[in-house]
Amino acid sequence: MSEERRGGRRQKSSRGGAGIAQLPWRAVENPYASLQMATEEEVEAIHRTSMRILSELGIRVMGGRVLDLFEAAGAIVDRSESTIRIDEGMVDAALATVPSSFTLTSRNPSRRLTIGGRNITFGLVAGPPNVHDCVNGRRAGNMRDYENFIRLAHHFNAIHIIGNQVTAPQELPANNRHLDTYRANLTLSDLSFHCTAIGRGRAMDGINMMAIARGITVDQMAKDPGVITIISVNSPRLFDDSMGDGLMAMAEHGQPVTVTPFTLMGAMTPVTLAAALAQQNAEALFGIVLTQLVNPGAPVMYGAFTSNVDMRSGAPAFGTPENTKANIVSGQLARRYRLPYRTSNANASNVVDLQAAYETGMATWGAVMGGANMVYHAAGWLEGGLTASYEKLVLDVEILQNMMEILRPIDFSDAELGFDAIASVPTGGHFFGAEHTMARYESAFYRPMLSDWTNYGGWEAAGAKDALTRATAIWQQALRDYEESVMDPAIREELDAYVARRKEEIGAGEP
Amino acid sequence: MSEERRGGRRQKSSRGGAGIAQLPWRAVENPYASLQMATEEEVEAIHRTSMRILSELGIRVMGGRVLDLFEAAGAIVDRSESTIRIDEGMVDAALATVPSSFTLTSRNPSRRLTIGGRNITFGLVAGPPNVHDCVNGRRAGNMRDYENFIRLAHHFNAIHIIGNQVTAPQELPANNRHLDTYRANLTLSDLSFHCTAIGRGRAMDGINMMAIARGITVDQMAKDPGVITIISVNSPRLFDDSMGDGLMAMAEHGQPVTVTPFTLMGAMTPVTLAAALAQQNAEALFGIVLTQLVNPGAPVMYGAFTSNVDMRSGAPAFGTPENTKANIVSGQLARRYRLPYRTSNANASNVVDLQAAYETGMATWGAVMGGANMVYHAAGWLEGGLTASYEKLVLDVEILQNMMEILRPIDFSDAELGFDAIASVPTGGHFFGAEHTMARYESAFYRPMLSDWTNYGGWEAAGAKDALTRATAIWQQALRDYEESVMDPAIREELDAYVARRKEEIGAGEP
Repeated sequence: MSEERRGGRRQKSSRGGAGIAQLPWRAVENPYASLQMATEEEVEAIHRTSMRILSELGIRVMGGRVLDLFEAAGAIVDRSESTIRIDEGMVDAALATVPSSFTLTSRNPSRRLTIGGRNITFGLVAGPPNVHDCVNGRRAGNMRDYENFIRLAHHFNAIHIIGNQVTAPQELPANNRHLDTYRANLTLSDLSFHCTAIGRGRAMDGINMMAIARGITVDQMAKDPGVITIISVNSPRLFDDSMGDGLMAMAEHGQPVTVTPFTLMGAMTPVTLAAALAQQNAEALFGIVLTQLVNPGAPVMYGAFTSNVDMRSGAPAFGTPENTKANIVSGQLARRYRLPYRTSNANASNVVDLQAAYETGMATWGAVMGGANMVYHAAGWLEGGLTASYEKLVLDVEILQNMMEILRPIDFSDAELGFDAIASVPTGGHFFGAEHTMARYESAFYRPMLSDWTNYGGWEAAGAKDALTRATAIWQQALRDYEESVMDPAIREELDAYVARRKEEIGAGEP
Repeated sequence: MSEERRGGRRQKSSRGGAGIAQLPWRAVENPYASLQMATEEEVEAIHRTSMRILSELGIRVMGGRVLDLFEAAGAIVDRSESTIRIDEGMVDAALATVPSSFTLTSRNPSRRLTIGGRNITFGLVAGPPNVHDCVNGRRAGNMRDYENFIRLAHHFNAIHIIGNQVTAPQELPANNRHLDTYRANLTLSDLSFHCTAIGRGRAMDGINMMAIARGITVDQMAKDPGVITIISVNSPRLFDDSMGDGLMAMAEHGQPVTVTPFTLMGAMTPVTLAAALAQQNAEALFGIVLTQLVNPGAPVMYGAFTSNVDMRSGAPAFGTPENTKANIVSGQLARRYRLPYRTSNANASNVVDLQAAYETGMATWGAVMGGANMVYHAAGWLEGGLTASYEKLVLDVEILQNMMEILRPIDFSDAELGFDAIASVPTGGHFFGAEHTMARYESAFYRPMLSDWTNYGGWEAAGAKDALTRATAIWQQALRDYEESVMDPAIREELDAYVARRKEEIGAGEP
């Protein structure tokens, strides 16, 4: 029903003339072979280095339960140093139980996502403390903007999933605002979302609230996941306890986890791509082993976030050639282990400008050519992740839609090869009125949302609006066009009651 | 010597602080497997359709000598309709004599280009009637701007070759201004360039003048090409006589030709990608056969320029998903015939904005993933090719440099895998001061020309300049930094005398 409503809205908008052209919701598959930037031998060399890191150097873990779990499984645990060393056998044993793909189901079953295989899923930006739009400027994250971004994610079909807090609503208490953001995710959209995994409590709230929204029990959801989370590793080789707790809560309840080392070359790893990949790989595999120790068969994803810093300032950079290459080789590693693969669409620009666009293009192509199954931060990321941008979201949706069309296989049937159509037009003529054209022209080409193809005179006469100006008009229009997805009032009440009860429980007592 | 001088200038600029960081001149190789968007069977289906177009429908040719050549070779020539039909055998015979790669040598032998194989060459935009920069606005093409663009092409190492008239100097007589532009190419840069191939005279002038600049004879240059040209087909299926004459003059003298059908889907071809590719392929192969009838073994390149039009307005569009896919499958076709492959880096934006950047990114990735040997219009193309843009040139050089770095193979040696470096840094520490880092940090990462990675506060304090504003400063700086390549005064005199003599000869007599 919700699917129909979306379709209906889109059509209505198109008819109105002022509506925003966009592609329909669809699961995106990548039918092309992924790019191989490393030979098989080179992938094995990375793997062997990672195994040495895990078995000779180990990972430091803050949190006793993780030490216990690994010790029980046969790891070498040094409690004085809180380090865990594991061998290749333990990694292999864990990989043997990891599913190569999994599904994520929101409260709208028609939005079910398959994560793995040739599927590719695009996520809303997550985590920025600030927001920006060209009308109101840059400001601290707040609930009003949070809600608007969720509305935009719901409205734009190219965004498949909500990340972990599109921006932090800083006016709300830090220890319970996740409840407000989860509620906004569930009521303002019908998409699945990423839980905050800082500690067990926040993860469990996400699991509980999605189960309520779906009208199922947490046990039922353990077999049919509804939420996901990102666990960041504090590279080099450090797992903090709140992240470990979040990971364990998710894995225990059958909800997928993405293990993503935060590996900026030159800062958290050596400056070389090979070393960064080896370290990233070791750290990701460690987290993946942990999920399987907690709950063999729990869904888990290989996360990559390897980019570089500006060696003159230490500032992080994204959408760089090194980042693009890391995106691609990381995919090779994930596939070596038959793991679903997550990467990102990031850039380091301070403003939605040429740099934001070309760095994003580089990152997107790296993700797609790397065979990513999830592109996190795919829409709205600006300023190295410190700002969620309205105009950047529009730019990104356009780039994602272009990519979705590039990924649509070409039809080479005889009718499409069109010999008769070619024969029907004289030399030097044109095909505008040809029957073959008339039968197909409305859907033949991708119709862009942001690009303007009118000629210079027409463009100038219409106000000479550049793409950034048009992007502002598009998100404003999208918010006007937005229609909230229908929710059973009883479920809404249950969600509200859950939030109220948990806020009471949390009080000032949880961090 | 010129190489050293360039290097010297670059270094000097870097030291000065205000200089522009850029990559050194280098031949670019694409080490990765090209993307396959069509299966082998699908490529054969395109091929078969093309053969039907050539043998059943034929190509219309304006110009008697072409009819004679094809007739002598056994083609079916209909003189009343001026059409030529050829069979697959004639195509195969021609392909058997085409070299799979060739070189282009300018007056500076260290700038020798290899076109074919895994090499990829980036060309300056060609043909726009207008120019634009953000300081002086949009204006008609003129010699002053022409010269500035040649200086920029010489200055920026990512630009390997000059296209056919970066802009038309409209204040000069149309029938002899090619002499002025050739002289500018030869004196202001040391790059090879594309001749204007409208008629035999313009092609011969380019050949003669490059031979003078190199201090060799035209006969010597026939064995060691120095200039190249683009022959456009007036799709569908029409070769005009001036283009035919230009092609024949080049082929006779052993200079390479790129045969590029002008195939905008929906206008000059059917709306389907499959049909457009079949028609493009037929038209390109026809021109390629002609080069071999004129001079077996003459270097020739497969050109692709398939994009789509906006079906609502008929306006051409570039950097679209369809254009990107065409770029990729065209590469598969070129490789099927073992032909060097030319495509383009185009966009349809009226201004250097987000659209210009993301459409260019799509086109560039399509070209690179398609295995292009030459990316024509790689730097400076704006407004669907109607404007040569200074800021777009800077944007493009940055994108090209990013791509050059992406194409540099990753080193997976033990030293780069850096196990010892990883072992040397404690968990949660950082690698800024590590020995492994210190030994490599200066050259570890690509240093961008246009991207600004400073944090928001620093960026704001420095004037909050977006990338477009920075691009203006960069081309201005490049023109200040530009150093003309030394030319023997005797050669310069000979060039001047040639231009004067030819202007005299041409008078008002040639079109």
